[in-house]
Amino acid sequence: MNDTIDYARYDRIRPIRWTGTALELLDQRKLPFVVEYLACTTSDEVAAAIHDLAVRGAPAIGIAAAWGVVLASREVLAATPAEALEKLEPALQRLNDARPTAVNLAWALARMRAALRTAGSDWRGVLELEALAIAEEDLAANRHMGELGAALIGEGSGVLTHCNTGSLATAGFGTALGVIRAGVAQGRIGKVYAGETRPWQQGARLTAWELQQDGIPATLIADSAASHLMKTGAVQWVVVGADRICANGDTANKIGTYQLAIAARHHGAKFMVVAPSSTVDMATPDGEAIHIEERDPAELLGIGGTRIVAEGVAAWNPVFDVTPASLIDAIVTEKGVIEQPDEARMRAAFGG
Amino acid sequence: MNDTIDYARYDRIRPIRWTGTALELLDQRKLPFVVEYLACTTSDEVAAAIHDLAVRGAPAIGIAAAWGVVLASREVLAATPAEALEKLEPALQRLNDARPTAVNLAWALARMRAALRTAGSDWRGVLELEALAIAEEDLAANRHMGELGAALIGEGSGVLTHCNTGSLATAGFGTALGVIRAGVAQGRIGKVYAGETRPWQQGARLTAWELQQDGIPATLIADSAASHLMKTGAVQWVVVGADRICANGDTANKIGTYQLAIAARHHGAKFMVVAPSSTVDMATPDGEAIHIEERDPAELLGIGGTRIVAEGVAAWNPVFDVTPASLIDAIVTEKGVIEQPDEARMRAAFGG
Repeated sequence: MNDTIDYARYDRIRPIRWTGTALELLDQRKLPFVVEYLACTTSDEVAAAIHDLAVRGAPAIGIAAAWGVVLASREVLAATPAEALEKLEPALQRLNDARPTAVNLAWALARMRAALRTAGSDWRGVLELEALAIAEEDLAANRHMGELGAALIGEGSGVLTHCNTGSLATAGFGTALGVIRAGVAQGRIGKVYAGETRPWQQGARLTAWELQQDGIPATLIADSAASHLMKTGAVQWVVVGADRICANGDTANKIGTYQLAIAARHHGAKFMVVAPSSTVDMATPDGEAIHIEERDPAELLGIGGTRIVAEGVAAWNPVFDVTPASLIDAIVTEKGVIEQPDEARMRAAFGG
Repeated sequence: MNDTIDYARYDRIRPIRWTGTALELLDQRKLPFVVEYLACTTSDEVAAAIHDLAVRGAPAIGIAAAWGVVLASREVLAATPAEALEKLEPALQRLNDARPTAVNLAWALARMRAALRTAGSDWRGVLELEALAIAEEDLAANRHMGELGAALIGEGSGVLTHCNTGSLATAGFGTALGVIRAGVAQGRIGKVYAGETRPWQQGARLTAWELQQDGIPATLIADSAASHLMKTGAVQWVVVGADRICANGDTANKIGTYQLAIAARHHGAKFMVVAPSSTVDMATPDGEAIHIEERDPAELLGIGGTRIVAEGVAAWNPVFDVTPASLIDAIVTEKGVIEQPDEARMRAAFGG
């Protein structure tokens, strides 16, 4: 075991690149077979890329939108920041509307507006620096969470993850996948399993590819094989991301996460949630207060454009589920680790 | 609630039809979009249909093989049953080898051999009657199990099933799906959910179609959504089939079954296993003694001929898992119901 992490080796994927004149987005719709960056030179191209899922993952969407504001700043003529704010508003609105449910998108745009309000005559330069800061802070938070989370994992552990929470979903390194990268780099993690994550197969398409790029061997499993795998003793930690963390520690994440938490508890495996503190929502008391989005049943009725289910069959397609805090052993944010989370520990860490 | 079952309405699918000169098999590879029977007029055509998965499901495979022996009996010239037994052996062997792991296949062929040994000069007629008996006994057993299992289910219940255990896998009516058909017919079951059953999608492709044919509305879910569904209170019983039931009640079934059993116990839902007594293997003491078959990882790397996972990614693809008896509330065979199964109750019911 070695606590230093060779980031040059274990953090090689950058899904979002700023060239100074264009935003280049690693097109996730084409992965894993085509590695191609989509160049956006206007804010509307960025909005379209977000809308069309060329970029996905809440932190990555926020960062892309921030660069979209920078591109928008070059599309308007304005003598003052106040005038710019007014003239930029339509473009900001189009960026915001590209994926209205992504919390980080609104958060990043609010941060860009705030930067503009305190800017001087070089307001375009201020916006560019703010976008850069958003991206760099995300990467730094992920690396810090990686170290915090990996420290909980004992040598020789097997870990199982779900969905994609990696470099592709962030500025780089990832949240739950950042912990796994750090754990592998430190020699703590001996084996990595990835659930395929029906119906969108983010685990199969994205996580498996991403870990392969960094030379981390991962083994793909059907989501339904997780309990059988745990029964063999192969899994010491389940490590997942979060879409929202409530004031009592209840956590909303990709459908299937809750089932993994139940299985982990049944087998004595530990369960870790990794997400930036911007995911913590102290205004939502618990999981009961979260509305679970349901998506088009068609996502379950076919695969890759090929229909596999008879016409007229109904399907239920919830996108997220809620894992109660009682099944979570640790919540890791860039602010620290909360073990056995409950409302008191959450309030001590995040106030509210 | 009404205890009579309208079989004319709720048992309409026959995957295996004997015309007197040919065996017609409902081609399961083409479902749910094409309903087409494959006509077999030779024993080798039956062997090929079994091998190529035109017919699947352990009881259905056994029945098809028995009819294959009838076709073989017309391909040989033999004066006595003893001579016939010798001349038929190569054809029986080819049928047996079509799917060597299917227990019911060997069982049906052994039964056909035994019938031949006690036959007289009309040995061809005896074989035809024996094949018919195998098919009719399977259907009768399924209907009996349906009534036994349904009697456990309270009015207005929601049920969740896994894989395909229906008419398509048997002579008709099905095992676990037979219980669900009976429960719907009697007004006990208000809502049926089917897990899609990765990686082969038997739930999505076959179960959803089959229930639709009988006018039973079913709702398809991703396997990973089962726990979230149970948390809503929608599931009172999980009802599944079995590939093997051990002397202590531990049950091997399609991968994902064990995870459903854990989730059911966590939510206070009941768990029922439905299978003919030929599935009970008193020579296997418990689940630890079962070797779990692993299939080609390629089944997880693509869907319907389209590869979705990067080259070089590993996958683990166990076909079955074992649900311990402690998580099973009832085992239903045509011989009766064993509640809270354990070794003593299994031995009392099945001897050994």
